[in-house]
Amino acid sequence: MPESHLTVAGLSESELLARIFPRLNNLHPNGGAAASALLLGPGDDAAIVAAPDGRTVVSIDTQVQDQDFRLVWRNGYRTTGFDVGWKAAAQNLSDINAMGARSTAMVVSLTLPPETPVSWVEDFADGLSHAIHDLGADGCSVAGGDLGRGRELAVTVAILGTLAGQQPVLRSGARPGHTVALAGTVGHAAAGLALLESGPAVDLLSPALRTIMDRQCRPLPPLAAGPAALASGASSMMDISDGLVRDGHRLAAASGIVLNLDPAALKLLTEPLAAAADAVDADPMAWVLGGGEDHGLLATFPADVQLPPGFAAIGSVEALAPTESTGVKIAGRPADTVGWDHFAD
Amino acid sequence: MPESHLTVAGLSESELLARIFPRLNNLHPNGGAAASALLLGPGDDAAIVAAPDGRTVVSIDTQVQDQDFRLVWRNGYRTTGFDVGWKAAAQNLSDINAMGARSTAMVVSLTLPPETPVSWVEDFADGLSHAIHDLGADGCSVAGGDLGRGRELAVTVAILGTLAGQQPVLRSGARPGHTVALAGTVGHAAAGLALLESGPAVDLLSPALRTIMDRQCRPLPPLAAGPAALASGASSMMDISDGLVRDGHRLAAASGIVLNLDPAALKLLTEPLAAAADAVDADPMAWVLGGGEDHGLLATFPADVQLPPGFAAIGSVEALAPTESTGVKIAGRPADTVGWDHFAD
Repeated sequence: MPESHLTVAGLSESELLARIFPRLNNLHPNGGAAASALLLGPGDDAAIVAAPDGRTVVSIDTQVQDQDFRLVWRNGYRTTGFDVGWKAAAQNLSDINAMGARSTAMVVSLTLPPETPVSWVEDFADGLSHAIHDLGADGCSVAGGDLGRGRELAVTVAILGTLAGQQPVLRSGARPGHTVALAGTVGHAAAGLALLESGPAVDLLSPALRTIMDRQCRPLPPLAAGPAALASGASSMMDISDGLVRDGHRLAAASGIVLNLDPAALKLLTEPLAAAADAVDADPMAWVLGGGEDHGLLATFPADVQLPPGFAAIGSVEALAPTESTGVKIAGRPADTVGWDHFAD
Repeated sequence: MPESHLTVAGLSESELLARIFPRLNNLHPNGGAAASALLLGPGDDAAIVAAPDGRTVVSIDTQVQDQDFRLVWRNGYRTTGFDVGWKAAAQNLSDINAMGARSTAMVVSLTLPPETPVSWVEDFADGLSHAIHDLGADGCSVAGGDLGRGRELAVTVAILGTLAGQQPVLRSGARPGHTVALAGTVGHAAAGLALLESGPAVDLLSPALRTIMDRQCRPLPPLAAGPAALASGASSMMDISDGLVRDGHRLAAASGIVLNLDPAALKLLTEPLAAAADAVDADPMAWVLGGGEDHGLLATFPADVQLPPGFAAIGSVEALAPTESTGVKIAGRPADTVGWDHFAD
């Protein structure tokens, strides 16, 4: 059988693993071993990861075909193994980033339909490795995993991280008077999704629109910003995976406050999305307020703190008025009842 | 809609989580908090787990419907949420046990078809909690998770553990002259599978056969035995998830030796399986040698070490003869070429 037609049904688990392992943990600078937290790598019943300050930060995230991505999108783009590997890594690295921590290791479970090409799985491993390296998480190794069969393609990553002796930045620390700030982008992954689902055929996209589309498939969480926010004294933080307003509500609820966002700052965030909005006849403010999956960071800082590099102010924290509920406002009006269309023009 | 007909499609993620959380981490003795390694529990972007000796042991395992279990078996038994939660916990607890470590926390990702009854998910959470408690892993908490939709039911658990300052027991340390020993059972889960797939209708099973059947659905890994083996000076160890011969080959390859198993000891292991073998007209020795999923421990000990409680000797480690490959023998003959039928009567 020609190599290009080989599917996972044609290999044993150990043969498939032998194709994956060389593609993992191979992009670290300085040979990798020096900076790695991996004390015992894949091959035994479990791996061992250093936790130098006596604590491990941990999270888990799953992507399933047709739920979290389409194998083939309506604009003709075919999701690559590289895309799925990248996104699985990026989503999980972002959860550690959102605590102000650095990722040390991930374990990966891959569920594959038998007809999956082996080349897709190799590409997946490359995407995982490149995301770790290109996003600047070189201290993170792949410590082990699990391979299995299923009717649909699914990938679960569990990720470990270290706070290096510092206290985590939780969702619950925002206080009235603090500055609300954002690192990374919002709305780009949502704009990319719109291009994939209702945009022109992928081959006809301009390079600029293609870049936006790629943010749905390969998001760019700002991994330097989390530890920088912790070091600067951020009072609260979370990653935006479900949208600025929805996740803002969660942070507001955990902190018992109101986030009052500045319409001018929000308007600025729509500018990189203008061409994509034109292409699909959409409102870019809806993407900024409602779009998830960019994995930017929403954080608050005491007013006397200079925002660390990568963060821009987008509002302020306010105390609850009597009988008021926690939540998100825009220029003082509740974001959910105002609706974002008010800020679209 | 009556509560009994409520499916996960009828609840938001937060409503479903609100039904799961009270069922987790609620069975620990002494109120739980004292013994728990959980420094920050579910609700933020990531959890934080204590790693008192500066290292975290980590593993991951996935179960998918129709691959790892049937929703309805051929004998009419319907897999419960409790079964799936129990097995997910047990498999993962076993991986930590196999290093000689103790589990501290797990994170759980659950992929659910929309038609899944909410009661099934509640039952899943109960099974997870009860396995942790009943198997004696009360130091292990559920630290967080991920809920999502899919066409098929899948559960992934990633588990963390601690070695409490000790060195792990690897697969690679078996040396000629060491005793080969087993803790827990082998073949019971395989016998249970045979009853589920080709046995009498579940309602007609005797209590004894039902107990064997239950070992496929709710395995009993011997969680005290792993740390006891480490403390006693075991030279190598792994859990038997794919069968004694197959996993024995892996341990032999990692250690560069031959495991020579004692037919009389193997025969003894078939005795509890005799009634099940009669019921489905099978060879119980095939289950002992080839059956996985009991998650017993295969370990080796220096000859002068007294086997810790729970372990029974089943053979000895031999050096490789010139030109010989690593592997498993029975009474000096290669297990794969001899075949286990020679030892069935």
